[in-house]
Amino acid sequence: MPIERVAIIGLGLLGGSIGLAVQAHLPGMQTTGWDSDPATRKRAAERGLVGAVCDTAPDAVAEADLVILCVPVGAMGAAAAAIAPGLKAGAVISDVGSSKQTVAKALAEALPGHPVIPAHPVAGTERSGPDAGFASLFQQRWCIITPPDDADAAQVAALSAFWEALGATVEIMTPQHHDMVLAVTSHLPHLIAYTIVGTADDLEDVTQGEVIKYSAGGFRDFTRIAASDPTMWRDVFLTNKDAVLDMLQRFTEDLTALQKAIRMGDGQQLFDHFTRTRAIRRSIIEEGQDDARPDFGRSDHGDG
Amino acid sequence: MPIERVAIIGLGLLGGSIGLAVQAHLPGMQTTGWDSDPATRKRAAERGLVGAVCDTAPDAVAEADLVILCVPVGAMGAAAAAIAPGLKAGAVISDVGSSKQTVAKALAEALPGHPVIPAHPVAGTERSGPDAGFASLFQQRWCIITPPDDADAAQVAALSAFWEALGATVEIMTPQHHDMVLAVTSHLPHLIAYTIVGTADDLEDVTQGEVIKYSAGGFRDFTRIAASDPTMWRDVFLTNKDAVLDMLQRFTEDLTALQKAIRMGDGQQLFDHFTRTRAIRRSIIEEGQDDARPDFGRSDHGDG
Repeated sequence: MPIERVAIIGLGLLGGSIGLAVQAHLPGMQTTGWDSDPATRKRAAERGLVGAVCDTAPDAVAEADLVILCVPVGAMGAAAAAIAPGLKAGAVISDVGSSKQTVAKALAEALPGHPVIPAHPVAGTERSGPDAGFASLFQQRWCIITPPDDADAAQVAALSAFWEALGATVEIMTPQHHDMVLAVTSHLPHLIAYTIVGTADDLEDVTQGEVIKYSAGGFRDFTRIAASDPTMWRDVFLTNKDAVLDMLQRFTEDLTALQKAIRMGDGQQLFDHFTRTRAIRRSIIEEGQDDARPDFGRSDHGDG
Repeated sequence: MPIERVAIIGLGLLGGSIGLAVQAHLPGMQTTGWDSDPATRKRAAERGLVGAVCDTAPDAVAEADLVILCVPVGAMGAAAAAIAPGLKAGAVISDVGSSKQTVAKALAEALPGHPVIPAHPVAGTERSGPDAGFASLFQQRWCIITPPDDADAAQVAALSAFWEALGATVEIMTPQHHDMVLAVTSHLPHLIAYTIVGTADDLEDVTQGEVIKYSAGGFRDFTRIAASDPTMWRDVFLTNKDAVLDMLQRFTEDLTALQKAIRMGDGQQLFDHFTRTRAIRRSIIEEGQDDARPDFGRSDHGDG
C-alpha cells in the first residue's frame, strides 16, 4: 500500500507539524488539509502547512490514501463524521490522539468499512494552534502505533514507514498497553502540573507576584506543562480515565509515604528516595529523550 | 560597611557560582574559599572558583568581611563551628540556604556575637559539585534576604549591594514568610517531582525502558528536578517541615478534587481548571523568569 496522498484533518500543533514534516522529508507526497475553524484554515494556508487547504472536510480527503485526524480525542467522532462523505474506498484512517482505546472505538464506529490504524507520536510543545507547528517536531521522538487485531500488515508497514520518514522511531503495542504507559509518562505529569499551578494560584498568604518572582525555584517548570491546550487535556482525562486513576492512586500512596517521612523527620528515607530518582534522568539523557545541558539548556539558566 | 574580602564556605554549584560571579563583576574584591571535601578543594582550585582555596576553614575566613556558607542547610551548624576559630571580629555571616528560619537559628547559636544576615538566591540547576557553577547563575534572578529584627541597616545594605552586583534583584522579607513562599515555589515542586519519578520506577506493568522512551510526553520535565542533590533536598524538607506539610495538604485537596472530576466525567470542571493555569505561565515569561520559547527552547523540541 503506497501512500501518495495524505489528508490532515485539524491544523494545529500536530497537524501543522505533520504537514511541514511531509513537505520537508517526503516531497513527492501530496498534502491536503482542513480545519473546522475558518481562521485556522486561513492561517494554515498562509504558513503553507499543507499543499492545499480545502474549504470542506470531504474535499480535503477526496483523493487521500491516508487520512490523519489531528483533533482533540473528544472530537474524533465529529471529525470522522465530517470526512465520511468524501473518503475514497480503502483509505486508511489514522490519528495522533494521546489516548487510544476510546479513539479506536470511536473511529471504527464512525467509519465502518474503512481500515482504522490509530497512532500517537509522543511529541509536542505547550503551544497550540496553526502557528505552533514545525517540521522537526518528530525528530528523535517515538511514535506508537496501535493496530487492531485484524489490521492489514502492509497498511501498518506503510504507516510505520510514513512516521519513520518524518524522523520518528515506531513502536507497535496494544491500545490497552499504550493507555497505561502514557498514563504515567504523560497524563499523570500533566494532571499534577495543572494541580500545583492551581494550588499556588489559590494561596491567601503568598501573592501571585511572589509565586511568579520566585518560580525559578522549580515551580516554573510545572507552569510550562500546565499551559498546554485545555481542550486537548480535558479530553485525554475523560478518555483515559481508568489508567489515569490507577496511576494517580499509586502516586498518592507514594506521596503519602514521603509526607510521613517528612513529618517524622526520617532523613534516611528521604535521602534514599532522592538518590534513586537520579538514575532515571541519566537514562533519559543517554537515550536522547532530553537535553543533556543543565536546566534543559535554557538560555538564561536558573532554578533552585 | 564596605565588603572588601569575601570567604565562601562550600564550593559546589552555589559557592562556585558566587566565586566566579564575584571575580567577573567585582574584580577588586578578594575571594577565598574552603570545602570540607579535599577533592572539591582541588577541583575548585583548578577551575579558579575563588582567588585562593585554603586548606582549613579558619584560614579561609581569617581576613573576610563577609562569609557566605554554601552548604546544605543541615550542615550549617557544622560549617559555622568550623569557621568560628578564624573569624575576624565583626565579620558578617550569611548563607544561601533554601530554608531560613532553622538556618537563622542554627547560625546565631553557633556564632554568638557575630552579625548573621541570612540570604537565599533563588537560582540553581539540577547539577551539583565544583564543576557545576557558572558566573551568570544569578543574572535576572531574585535574592531574598531575611535579616533578623536587630540587623544593622548598613550591613543589610552592603549585602544587598553585593547580590545586586552579581546580577540579582534583592527582596527583603521575614524568614517565616520566606519559608512559606519557597514551600510553594520550590519545595513542593521538588517533592512532587521526586515522588512521581519514584512512582514510575516502581510500576510492574510498564517497563523502565518504556518510561524512558515515552518520557517526552511530559514525564522527562520532572526527572530534571528529581535529579537535584539528595543531601540538599533532604535537609530542606527536614528544616522547612511545617510550611511544606501545609502546602502539601493544600495540593492534595486540589488533586483530590480533580481526581473526582475525572472519575465523574466532569469535563467542564477540568476545562475551567486547565484554562486558569495558563495565565500564570504568561506572567512568568513576561517577568523574565523563564524562556519564552516553546519547550524551554530545548534544542530538539518535543513533548506532548
